[in-house]
Amino acid sequence: MEALASGREIEMLLVEPESLGEERLQRFTGSCLQAHIPVHQVGRRGLEKLKQTVSPQGVMAVVKERAWSLAEILRNEPSTLVAVESIRDPGNLGTIYRTAAWFGVDAILLGGNCVEATNPKVVRASMGAVFHLPVADGLDIGAELSRPELSGFSVCLADVSAPREYSEMSFTGKTILVLGGETAEFTESLKQRVDHRLRIPLAGRGDSLNVAVAAGIFMAEMAKKGA
Amino acid sequence: MEALASGREIEMLLVEPESLGEERLQRFTGSCLQAHIPVHQVGRRGLEKLKQTVSPQGVMAVVKERAWSLAEILRNEPSTLVAVESIRDPGNLGTIYRTAAWFGVDAILLGGNCVEATNPKVVRASMGAVFHLPVADGLDIGAELSRPELSGFSVCLADVSAPREYSEMSFTGKTILVLGGETAEFTESLKQRVDHRLRIPLAGRGDSLNVAVAAGIFMAEMAKKGA
Repeated sequence: MEALASGREIEMLLVEPESLGEERLQRFTGSCLQAHIPVHQVGRRGLEKLKQTVSPQGVMAVVKERAWSLAEILRNEPSTLVAVESIRDPGNLGTIYRTAAWFGVDAILLGGNCVEATNPKVVRASMGAVFHLPVADGLDIGAELSRPELSGFSVCLADVSAPREYSEMSFTGKTILVLGGETAEFTESLKQRVDHRLRIPLAGRGDSLNVAVAAGIFMAEMAKKGA
Repeated sequence: MEALASGREIEMLLVEPESLGEERLQRFTGSCLQAHIPVHQVGRRGLEKLKQTVSPQGVMAVVKERAWSLAEILRNEPSTLVAVESIRDPGNLGTIYRTAAWFGVDAILLGGNCVEATNPKVVRASMGAVFHLPVADGLDIGAELSRPELSGFSVCLADVSAPREYSEMSFTGKTILVLGGETAEFTESLKQRVDHRLRIPLAGRGDSLNVAVAAGIFMAEMAKKGA
């Protein structure tokens, strides 16, 4: 439904006729037919072979991949970007998409060593955000952020050992939030481009926060302060 | 390591001798022997049979379960509690433990329809927080929060349709944060006990945030404001 709402090209819809008792699914299939999307009926066993989840919803869509370049993203004059490095867990990456869509982030930039941008678990965890949010992948984040077109952006790195707390940051103006997974090693060029290293202060016990949770706390703060 | 550091009773340690080349694991096994914990050597195939994850770390501990009652938790004079209802995803629940430990929350209260408090995936996602944080499970949250001993607590419900924004809340004094999973239906007694319904405002697009992300945003705000 989110794919259809986003205007993304849906190549075909596969529906299991037994599931069509559900009204929501009936209406959705109707909308797809109306939009000239080919609808194919598949049996329960066919769906079983294709499914990637324990309890499929009786419907699958083949959605055309949409690759974004950073140049295209910049043409839309973004004001807030989130760049991630070394996020291997698809649930975490999909959750970051979902949170970014919620807080109105303009696009996601994926650096090296990340799970594939359209991994099925990423898509599911994103709850449809993957269809709405521009995502550019396979980037050398350090090199890309040094482009002259991005010179007006303040680059903020989430870093558990940073001296400054995230809540001290004003987050006014154009902002790029950079986050890394547990094993992230940032390049020299990225480190040099970073304007602010910020930490979420530890008040109890632990080595780190989950990266999707840390991303959410930063994005909430940025949204609150108008970034 | 976190289980050992927490002082929780470890009944035995199972190690795969081939993994003992790793220095960290050597030191850990040494600490367990020193603490009179029985250490058993198992082969790779034995570990394969017991493992619940794709890449086990070559070591497993049998840790004695520790059930907390709400009465015990209250004896420690907590000031911040997190109560959750209908969280079925173990990764989300474990991540909430991890975040709660980070922000110094005193204990977690689990209502009905939650994944088991000590499900292996909960334990893994908690990154050891499960051993440090008191967790009381199987509670009727509405009934428990109405106890006279909790009358001094301000009960805040995370609710996407609440009229008030979470950032407007002062979060001074004793606080109980209540969160529900996607399918949560709160009882009448809980609704009546709630002092503040608060939302994380939508700035972009989406139906909801992931519950562990929403929990993190609330806990960060509470920690910042001294709750």
